[in-house]
Amino acid sequence: MRFSTRGAVDPFIVMDVMEAARLKELAGGDVIHMEVGQPATPAPRLAREALVAAMEREALGYTVALGLPELRARISRLYREWYGLSVPAERIVVTAGSSAGFLLTFLALFDAGDRVAIGDPGYPSYRNILRGLDLEPVSIATEASTRFQPAPVHLENADLQGLLVASPANPTGTMLGKGALQALADACRRAGIAFISDEIYHGIQFDGRRPVSALEVTDEVFVINSFSKYFSMTGWRIGWMVVPESHVRMVERLAQNFFICAPHASQVAALGALDAVEECEGHLAVYARNREILLNELPAAGFSRLAPCDGAFYLYADLSDLTDDSHAFTAAMLAEAGVAATPGLDFDPVRGHRTMRFSFARSTDDMVEAARRLKTWMARR
Amino acid sequence: MRFSTRGAVDPFIVMDVMEAARLKELAGGDVIHMEVGQPATPAPRLAREALVAAMEREALGYTVALGLPELRARISRLYREWYGLSVPAERIVVTAGSSAGFLLTFLALFDAGDRVAIGDPGYPSYRNILRGLDLEPVSIATEASTRFQPAPVHLENADLQGLLVASPANPTGTMLGKGALQALADACRRAGIAFISDEIYHGIQFDGRRPVSALEVTDEVFVINSFSKYFSMTGWRIGWMVVPESHVRMVERLAQNFFICAPHASQVAALGALDAVEECEGHLAVYARNREILLNELPAAGFSRLAPCDGAFYLYADLSDLTDDSHAFTAAMLAEAGVAATPGLDFDPVRGHRTMRFSFARSTDDMVEAARRLKTWMARR
Repeated sequence: MRFSTRGAVDPFIVMDVMEAARLKELAGGDVIHMEVGQPATPAPRLAREALVAAMEREALGYTVALGLPELRARISRLYREWYGLSVPAERIVVTAGSSAGFLLTFLALFDAGDRVAIGDPGYPSYRNILRGLDLEPVSIATEASTRFQPAPVHLENADLQGLLVASPANPTGTMLGKGALQALADACRRAGIAFISDEIYHGIQFDGRRPVSALEVTDEVFVINSFSKYFSMTGWRIGWMVVPESHVRMVERLAQNFFICAPHASQVAALGALDAVEECEGHLAVYARNREILLNELPAAGFSRLAPCDGAFYLYADLSDLTDDSHAFTAAMLAEAGVAATPGLDFDPVRGHRTMRFSFARSTDDMVEAARRLKTWMARR
Repeated sequence: MRFSTRGAVDPFIVMDVMEAARLKELAGGDVIHMEVGQPATPAPRLAREALVAAMEREALGYTVALGLPELRARISRLYREWYGLSVPAERIVVTAGSSAGFLLTFLALFDAGDRVAIGDPGYPSYRNILRGLDLEPVSIATEASTRFQPAPVHLENADLQGLLVASPANPTGTMLGKGALQALADACRRAGIAFISDEIYHGIQFDGRRPVSALEVTDEVFVINSFSKYFSMTGWRIGWMVVPESHVRMVERLAQNFFICAPHASQVAALGALDAVEECEGHLAVYARNREILLNELPAAGFSRLAPCDGAFYLYADLSDLTDDSHAFTAAMLAEAGVAATPGLDFDPVRGHRTMRFSFARSTDDMVEAARRLKTWMARR
């Protein structure tokens, strides 16, 4: 049977790590999981209770394509609470996770052959979703000098139809400040480049930082967000977008056809999660402690070149003083130290053979133990 | 901000009907809903109980992209129970509803510009998803002579890369027998055309008919199915595909990037639903009664040209003796008789101005009352 060309997507290298970890655990070994980009905690109690109550009360059939009106209104209120922004509920689109948000955004903005810039290192699915839709991902090799973020200088003389940024970013955790976002938004507007802002890690930031939404600097942006990270709801596949008023109808029609609606049960749970401030802030406090521990212990172990982690729950390590083969390095670290992490090639196909990502989304006990193991292992190397 | 060309999808005309029905109800009017293609019943009790138990027990984070292994194994068993077929769990892909199944299928099989044949009348999103992916939907204008289904004769001399069939079909409810499916599969194989079978209405068939899966005649097929209809779980966005062994890895990688996974909660609920035979068969008995009532009453009211409804919960009416404008006809029927149905243009852009779809997925009381109203209204026209 025939195969498409565009479906020939690269595998995630972290899958090898996860399979090796699974085999090690099957064989009785013990693994600290720092490769997984998700909280170990369930959806907030209020989210689960909201769903249990709704299952007693309603059939939970299809919702309208843009999402439950009360959820859209509540997300609008979140913009007031978090950013002091007035974002009309009419511009908010409930999606089946940020994955659906990317698909709808790319479909609404771009035609086959269009070129969309993304920063390297970055979330690997950006590139693969773009390719699957016959769009051309254009890598911006970011450096520490711009906090591993794209900057207007990268857009000069580039033939681009779109720019996608993430703040806090995966895998680096770096954030774009208001000035940097404004400069990017302005440069995009001047050049006729569609501006897309992935804000999935908003809510998870450290040292008193405040996340800045692209909506604070422009309405001419597609913002993609999700309940997966701060609200601890990865498996529920529920998120949202904010789109310009001009694009609501097009996104609605695309959503009707491509998704019908986001999962109704997850929409109900998300509505509950939005009130779970105490539980979510509790998770944030754990991430903050984990980060402090690792920022002290990893350099002590010999991982001294870490990207500045403003937010998210990742530490991106430059291993160039340690190895030229991050895949082999993580394999050895898992086998010998029992600590799983993600080789950098998933995030940066060009330079990732010298980098690695640690996730600190799990328990503080795990982080303490990981640090102990890594210090011992690195000392022996 | 820029707009894509491919995102310029047609709206569903039924949305006008639904909005008019909502306004009528807001104004105190009473509407029988025969426009909606979904059961009014919730997910089976066993499905909901399975989820409540899982929420107590597990974090419900991401699952692997292909779906929970126990769900894939249980769906494999369903093929044995329903068709006497041995379908390895390895070929089963759990998806976020059939919507995700279509996307993954089209991405895995086709490149931009490829031509995929679909029968008219048919599910409108086929056409719109294909267009959004830069594929060309090729309409086959089916007739009563082939039970409104594509046949090998339609493939002759057609430049095609794919054929998508649905049995039982939406909106006609007609089924393809084993011989017809075999003939289509053979014709596709000979012509190098990828064969796709939408089996979302399997389980809902009448008068002792047995649904025939395309898997009974070939392994060279993408089968798309869902828990939405027979299992009454539309809003849960959970379904599955069976793909050729050759394509499992490609579909897995596409699913990882485009979806990460189907909603975990819905996967758990689906596993419960598969054991809810009594409840699902109870719904089927209601649909069968509803169908009997309408097959008697609609012709008596004056809707005499109905497609032969083998399965699904639709009756597709040819209105050519009544109107040339099915949009206006359904609007008048809603306003004057308080019965909402779907104008045919959503299913057949060319001939649908003379057709209409009744859904009989709701209660038997609703069907009896609808028949009464329609008889009175048609007598007055």
